[in-house]
Amino acid sequence: MTDKNWDFSGLKAIVFNGTLTKSPGESHTDLLIKISTDIMKKHGVGVEVIRTIDHDIATGVYPDMREHGAATDEWPDIYKRVEQADIIILAGPIWLGDNSSMTKKIIERLYACSSLLNSKGQYAYYGKVGGSLITGNEDGVKHCTMNTLYSLQHLGCVIPPQADAGWIGEVGPGASYGDTKEDGTREGLDNDFTNRNATFMTWNLMHLAKMLKDAGGIPAYGNQRSEWDAGARFDFTNPEYR
Amino acid sequence: MTDKNWDFSGLKAIVFNGTLTKSPGESHTDLLIKISTDIMKKHGVGVEVIRTIDHDIATGVYPDMREHGAATDEWPDIYKRVEQADIIILAGPIWLGDNSSMTKKIIERLYACSSLLNSKGQYAYYGKVGGSLITGNEDGVKHCTMNTLYSLQHLGCVIPPQADAGWIGEVGPGASYGDTKEDGTREGLDNDFTNRNATFMTWNLMHLAKMLKDAGGIPAYGNQRSEWDAGARFDFTNPEYR
Amino acid sequence: MTDKNWDFSGLKAIVFNGTLTKSPGESHTDLLIKISTDIMKKHGVGVEVIRTIDHDIATGVYPDMREHGAATDEWPDIYKRVEQADIIILAGPIWLGDNSSMTKKIIERLYACSSLLNSKGQYAYYGKVGGSLITGNEDGVKHCTMNTLYSLQHLGCVIPPQADAGWIGEVGPGASYGDTKEDGTREGLDNDFTNRNATFMTWNLMHLAKMLKDAGGIPAYGNQRSEWDAGARFDFTNPEYR
Amino acid sequence: MTDKNWDFSGLKAIVFNGTLTKSPGESHTDLLIKISTDIMKKHGVGVEVIRTIDHDIATGVYPDMREHGAATDEWPDIYKRVEQADIIILAGPIWLGDNSSMTKKIIERLYACSSLLNSKGQYAYYGKVGGSLITGNEDGVKHCTMNTLYSLQHLGCVIPPQADAGWIGEVGPGASYGDTKEDGTREGLDNDFTNRNATFMTWNLMHLAKMLKDAGGIPAYGNQRSEWDAGARFDFTNPEYR
Repeated sequence: MTDKNWDFSGLKAIVFNGTLTKSPGESHTDLLIKISTDIMKKHGVGVEVIRTIDHDIATGVYPDMREHGAATDEWPDIYKRVEQADIIILAGPIWLGDNSSMTKKIIERLYACSSLLNSKGQYAYYGKVGGSLITGNEDGVKHCTMNTLYSLQHLGCVIPPQADAGWIGEVGPGASYGDTKEDGTREGLDNDFTNRNATFMTWNLMHLAKMLKDAGGIPAYGNQRSEWDAGARFDFTNPEYR
Repeated sequence: MTDKNWDFSGLKAIVFNGTLTKSPGESHTDLLIKISTDIMKKHGVGVEVIRTIDHDIATGVYPDMREHGAATDEWPDIYKRVEQADIIILAGPIWLGDNSSMTKKIIERLYACSSLLNSKGQYAYYGKVGGSLITGNEDGVKHCTMNTLYSLQHLGCVIPPQADAGWIGEVGPGASYGDTKEDGTREGLDNDFTNRNATFMTWNLMHLAKMLKDAGGIPAYGNQRSEWDAGARFDFTNPEYR
Repeated sequence: MTDKNWDFSGLKAIVFNGTLTKSPGESHTDLLIKISTDIMKKHGVGVEVIRTIDHDIATGVYPDMREHGAATDEWPDIYKRVEQADIIILAGPIWLGDNSSMTKKIIERLYACSSLLNSKGQYAYYGKVGGSLITGNEDGVKHCTMNTLYSLQHLGCVIPPQADAGWIGEVGPGASYGDTKEDGTREGLDNDFTNRNATFMTWNLMHLAKMLKDAGGIPAYGNQRSEWDAGARFDFTNPEYR
Repeated sequence: MTDKNWDFSGLKAIVFNGTLTKSPGESHTDLLIKISTDIMKKHGVGVEVIRTIDHDIATGVYPDMREHGAATDEWPDIYKRVEQADIIILAGPIWLGDNSSMTKKIIERLYACSSLLNSKGQYAYYGKVGGSLITGNEDGVKHCTMNTLYSLQHLGCVIPPQADAGWIGEVGPGASYGDTKEDGTREGLDNDFTNRNATFMTWNLMHLAKMLKDAGGIPAYGNQRSEWDAGARFDFTNPEYR
């Protein structure tokens, strides 16, 4: 077996949990997040989990909504930690087959900051990696992660292989992830697919984050917004019908 | 400006065009593909574009459908070139807001081969990178690439930052990409967003593909299906409610 | 031409605008909504437009979040008007190719009330019709309405033919619907596709709402949750392979 | 209980099964279809099920692909039966979280005929109703039906309440619908959610199809393409900012 002495210390991860349940209420998604964050912590990654609904994050599409009429807005503070993170995980529940309003709010606020550039002129999210974790009792893991992973790559993150994991039960209402069943066991906790995917996702996030960090980010050529706006075209030529 | 003497020779790219128009009919998507392949060729990348509808690729979910009743099936031959490719681009048109049946056929056949493992026990697509190019005259670029990029990462590809590009006109039927307008200019060819995204996507595909190739692929720990099946758990532990 | 003396008085419509801009800020979606509500008002339909972000609607999945820890919640009052509406329109903007967090919040709250039954034992939304209106400057009308219309039919609404309309400009950032252009004209207002679809949607919503109202709702057989739960099976038999 | 002597004789239904398995291979989706068609047949509805992959239906976006280079094309014949159907059901499997290429092919061909108008100048699908049935072993029923139902309403069908049903097992690979389990029972056949939804969908399709048939279709005002093109505007007026 490959050497397991991987050192990911120095990496930071930020996880957004889009549950609609405020603390101290239980979030089933939190349990799935824990699979991933336990592995990361064990290997030296600094981890912060933010339950979005517990925070006074304004709704809107500007970096700081206090400049646009909001009395308060925690987002600018949270965004500072996003800036320092190497790994961003969008986690949350499924409602009516889709991501929650809390997950959408975070995507809107991340998007609001997408005009910011790093020192090389790339979008500020360049160099980060993204993943997604979804739970529900019915149906929709892939639908939700198609959207979360798409959003993250559109912002500038790298998406590692198999960067999503989730759990749902048989179609229809029923127990949620981690609920105690009649026989005393816990729903979903022995699901090999969920466990394997959460594990593989976590390692791939760490591998790619480290690879990018060691490389100093994504090579800065052909992808700098500031250069493009200044007229650089990076060998782009107008296409012609053959 | 950063040194532009990038050398990507040795990299190979395979592009699937899911147009519903057979050759020699014109494919508007082909024109967008050309933006990307021209840049890649200029920098030494070996490029193959496959117009799916021109090939006798069987429909189904097995690696070789000739073993499942199909009289003929070009896919096994094409898959050999997929195996050698470092970059996979799923391109195609929008129909009724979604990917074409030809694009879905290719995703099904790629998926059919996803049980194959590389020499390290990772899924065979590990080490490759994926992108997507979509054209239409109405609406749906992001919807289509949410699905194509999701599929590629699920199979094992890395998705670089901003790995999609596309063109649509104002909502509703109208001219397609590259159509000659009344004033003699060509529809969409001067769209800065399309051109920039296609360029950035192409460079990011090349950068990540080279980075992964130079690194010998994705580090093989925590993500080997063969090891997991043999009992390795890579520090996964069952979660407990806090 | 068919007689135009249609009388839709007695019908009520409720429109949710999921813009992220608070009043009195301008909402581009409002302008598109106006096409539809002007036609409805002219024909006697009572219309209410609710800009979600202006209201103190709690986030959550219960009919009244004040019973689940929220200090305030306008939803129970708004839901009373939903109950009286014959037509529900989910309208809103596109952000990163998807519905806004405000649109998702309303879907969550509508869904929270989906366990309520009418006097016949059908879901409470039976007998209502649903439509959707979306604006953006980039891409995603169909993606957004796939979700809004799906949600409405899942709750129990009838979806009339062509029950969505929207406007987007050419792909990429740019002017929004109704913005004044350099030549003094307004962006999108002369788009035949948008205007026709908004008109057809509106008439089809009125036609179907009236048809259902005149018929006393959806016939109550084969679709009553209360009867199913009490053991009725409505000729359902377990399938067998042929 | 409401009188159950419903008479739906005279109604016709056409069901497309987008399985990737040719006859006589087993289609799990067929089993779910049977729940619906058994109820319809019992109440006098004429039913035809078409397994798309068994037919020589050309790929493309024209009503008759033989006029566009295809040697053969069964679609024009099949479309004649679509024209006579009151109920259209798009059924099929989930692959990688999405509809199959066969389901997309049918949507493309239905769309190809959407420019055809009925005698009143409405789109030819006006007066029909649509539903959807999906099976898979993993995840994605709602994602798939968001697309199929959206497509059907866009073409001109009415979507009745709760017009979709499906079955998936717990997330991850596993048994498919109807597979025999170790204890001799059949996977999913006792799923109350699947059975109830399939039953409710079927009755709602019959109720709405009959209601529309008895009414002579959708009232022809405000929705006739031919009239719009001839200049009618049905009280549409250009919106103005308030």
